[in-house]
Amino acid sequence: MTKSNPGHFFEDFYVGMTLRHATPLTVSTGDISLYRALTGARHALYSAATFATANGYEGLPVDPLLAFHVVFGKTVPDISLNAVANLGYADGTFPVPVYPGDTLTAVSEVIGVKQNSNGKTGVVYVRTKGFNQRGEEALSYVRWVMVNKGNLDAPAPETVIPDLPQSVDPKGLNFNRNYADWDTVLAGSEHKFDAFEIGEKINHVDGMTVEEAEHQIATRLYQNTAKVHFDGHGQKASRFGKRLIYGGVVISIARALSFNGLANAAELIAINGGTHTGPLFAGDTVYAWSDVLDKVELSDTVGALRLRLVAVKDQDPADFALRGPDGKYAPGVCLDFDYWAAIPR
Amino acid sequence: MTKSNPGHFFEDFYVGMTLRHATPLTVSTGDISLYRALTGARHALYSAATFATANGYEGLPVDPLLAFHVVFGKTVPDISLNAVANLGYADGTFPVPVYPGDTLTAVSEVIGVKQNSNGKTGVVYVRTKGFNQRGEEALSYVRWVMVNKGNLDAPAPETVIPDLPQSVDPKGLNFNRNYADWDTVLAGSEHKFDAFEIGEKINHVDGMTVEEAEHQIATRLYQNTAKVHFDGHGQKASRFGKRLIYGGVVISIARALSFNGLANAAELIAINGGTHTGPLFAGDTVYAWSDVLDKVELSDTVGALRLRLVAVKDQDPADFALRGPDGKYAPGVCLDFDYWAAIPR
Amino acid sequence: MTKSNPGHFFEDFYVGMTLRHATPLTVSTGDISLYRALTGARHALYSAATFATANGYEGLPVDPLLAFHVVFGKTVPDISLNAVANLGYADGTFPVPVYPGDTLTAVSEVIGVKQNSNGKTGVVYVRTKGFNQRGEEALSYVRWVMVNKGNLDAPAPETVIPDLPQSVDPKGLNFNRNYADWDTVLAGSEHKFDAFEIGEKINHVDGMTVEEAEHQIATRLYQNTAKVHFDGHGQKASRFGKRLIYGGVVISIARALSFNGLANAAELIAINGGTHTGPLFAGDTVYAWSDVLDKVELSDTVGALRLRLVAVKDQDPADFALRGPDGKYAPGVCLDFDYWAAIPR
Repeated sequence: MTKSNPGHFFEDFYVGMTLRHATPLTVSTGDISLYRALTGARHALYSAATFATANGYEGLPVDPLLAFHVVFGKTVPDISLNAVANLGYADGTFPVPVYPGDTLTAVSEVIGVKQNSNGKTGVVYVRTKGFNQRGEEALSYVRWVMVNKGNLDAPAPETVIPDLPQSVDPKGLNFNRNYADWDTVLAGSEHKFDAFEIGEKINHVDGMTVEEAEHQIATRLYQNTAKVHFDGHGQKASRFGKRLIYGGVVISIARALSFNGLANAAELIAINGGTHTGPLFAGDTVYAWSDVLDKVELSDTVGALRLRLVAVKDQDPADFALRGPDGKYAPGVCLDFDYWAAIPR
Repeated sequence: MTKSNPGHFFEDFYVGMTLRHATPLTVSTGDISLYRALTGARHALYSAATFATANGYEGLPVDPLLAFHVVFGKTVPDISLNAVANLGYADGTFPVPVYPGDTLTAVSEVIGVKQNSNGKTGVVYVRTKGFNQRGEEALSYVRWVMVNKGNLDAPAPETVIPDLPQSVDPKGLNFNRNYADWDTVLAGSEHKFDAFEIGEKINHVDGMTVEEAEHQIATRLYQNTAKVHFDGHGQKASRFGKRLIYGGVVISIARALSFNGLANAAELIAINGGTHTGPLFAGDTVYAWSDVLDKVELSDTVGALRLRLVAVKDQDPADFALRGPDGKYAPGVCLDFDYWAAIPR
Repeated sequence: MTKSNPGHFFEDFYVGMTLRHATPLTVSTGDISLYRALTGARHALYSAATFATANGYEGLPVDPLLAFHVVFGKTVPDISLNAVANLGYADGTFPVPVYPGDTLTAVSEVIGVKQNSNGKTGVVYVRTKGFNQRGEEALSYVRWVMVNKGNLDAPAPETVIPDLPQSVDPKGLNFNRNYADWDTVLAGSEHKFDAFEIGEKINHVDGMTVEEAEHQIATRLYQNTAKVHFDGHGQKASRFGKRLIYGGVVISIARALSFNGLANAAELIAINGGTHTGPLFAGDTVYAWSDVLDKVELSDTVGALRLRLVAVKDQDPADFALRGPDGKYAPGVCLDFDYWAAIPR
């Protein structure tokens, strides 16, 4: 019998199943440097200890998306090794900041299963939590994936579809940083909470071409081992004939590009949803635009913007292309990501 | 109105204008590792805490060129977003060492402006200073760039050209490290101050081919966001039809190559001048040679060499090619960099 | 006379010659992050401080292969600058763990020389030791290389071939970690010492395509400056017409791939031997399989597996191809590496 990991198939998952994941990871300033060098991230809150401590942190924190990718990476061998597609995210929160030196572990619970009508695949919903070395919940999110059946004769389980919020309520997050000393010059923009209107669209202008080496280095940084991202030889026989870029790479690049226009919306505090609407390959150039979906006041000094972050490839983001007349995503759209960001008022 | 940064145009700059730059950055050992991995740097002084503390440092310092690139990167959105060309550097000094954990911020002052006769562009001279979290001046340099006018009808400003030194006087730098325990074996060369003669040329022999992923990762490490380095799609319509490598990448690779022959000239203490004499693109191989322009004694144990560092691409550096009979830079020369390095006597 | 390093030629080496190498290097968490991001390493022992300290370490240690590559890199300018081929390794041990903040230096002693019958080259055997800043021996290994003669008229030295062990005796290593709290779920596999049988072969399944940028960044991280890995222009005139990937890159990728099946055999404790049986180039995809050559009990809680780690390129590792009927390595085999790994019982 093989000692390599065969992964789980659809029939292996059941509601209530708990999966503790390998490999725990101690994040470091090395990870922070690499994240910056691979994504172009430049929000002051995650770049400078001085800026972070002046605004409510105990030190330079790790970008929530870096923590997210690390935790997500741990789940791959147990959840999505036999996955056909990563379908969506919901209800992502970041209760406790992650600092260099913290060790992250991840646990997932299956909260829904639904076999597809073709009898060959099914959808698995999991709630994944990341914990630090003190057992504090650093992040939590739901994702659902389409997974192959290993044994087509296995009976279909009772369908359970979890009740998921359309969006996280930012008022429920107990956000407690006051952004007391927010320096808009150092932050890189004069546009604070009041400057944004619901419905406003922002072109982030800049483009970032992604090389094979870059997405591979990033995806290994997160210890995400999904074969499709690394095995150029094996992928020749795949649908696309080449390596596919990890969707998290697209999220982070688009988010980094959004600095140009949203520099003060530095802190991602919740993920409402996200869909990888098209594949990205090495050589493609990512552009991004944002849509202000909602805004709420969190305190006297801090507000939150609900933002739709859209990544497009090899085309001008000034068109704000999202969907065609048929309701389908427009060509070139590769990410539709819905999140809340805190921003000083 | 756009919330993305439109940058400054020539008519926006005036002598005396002060620009505080985003984003402050806390440098770390992660940055040191990446700098080494991206450039091939191997001077003992910036590689080993033991060697550094034995020779006058409080710990392992950050390579001055890494600090320079970080500070330079911060100035790009404010100074050179609409630049046509980076014309030169002068009067660069590094008064206080940078250590991991230090946070760098940057401030520039406009010290000269001169509209070009075509009425479409002008030259802007800025003095940029980088400060640590204690407000100490870690580095300072002048650069001048050619910047587009945004409004061609804007009147030409009064021409002011700053008085810049041809070279920094190394005796004025108050260099206070004594290199008391300089171990030439660990440093990698037996050739100290006395071994070098003015006029001597040194072939650094080795070559380094630069990949797209490498220069992009390096340039993002420095949080330099100039579009031309990253946007492969957009650059198809540019003069060169492809991404252009940040000139600082060339400086650092050439300087790292110079280890082979100048291993003891480890510490760059001043930048006299520098010109990016030709573009570098991914796939090009950088070679380097040095010319000893001058030498002075700084103390009983330390001297300084004034070095011209020349980078050439895809050709043998043994020719010491610099300029052709017409006085123009020879084909393939991509950097002419003039600096002072401290070296044990 | 040239000031760049001409390296040593075969006739320069003599038995008993001692070479202290440049450049000392302080390893950091930045190096750990880069090593992970470049190789895909994910053994819990070298990923998480919590896991490491629960199992006998004082903190998060540096992967022994990272320390090995750093020490190996230092020897290149003195030992193998004029080498034709790196022929083998033997008797590699890691007496003292390396932690972030430690500074590694390297010293080699020539322990054997043998001129080849062609009179143009010879084989040099060196024992290299790496020391930390306290002078403790962190690692030690023998390698032998074929080196060009510089002066063909130099007389052949008396042949001395060192007596090298076929394999290290793991019982002699005084292994003192007890793996008391080894969590197999966090480690990533349920297969411990008793699950493995001598003669068992394990297919590690996954593949990793290597890009030029990746192997160059890794090789510079180790401060290994061998020209063949970096100089794409110069290599056009070489036997292969392109850059050759440093063999240590292959070792580390194959070892990282072996996680999938050997996750508990986390700690490499000795290198018995190793041969780079074929070249690897950018664009090649590395696969790996392992053969359990031997097993011994080290204590009540820890055993050791002697493993042959074989890397193949661009072909299915399920064939377990090693040698053809002629006894030569099968096509595509690029590494035959023999080592001991500790594993919980």
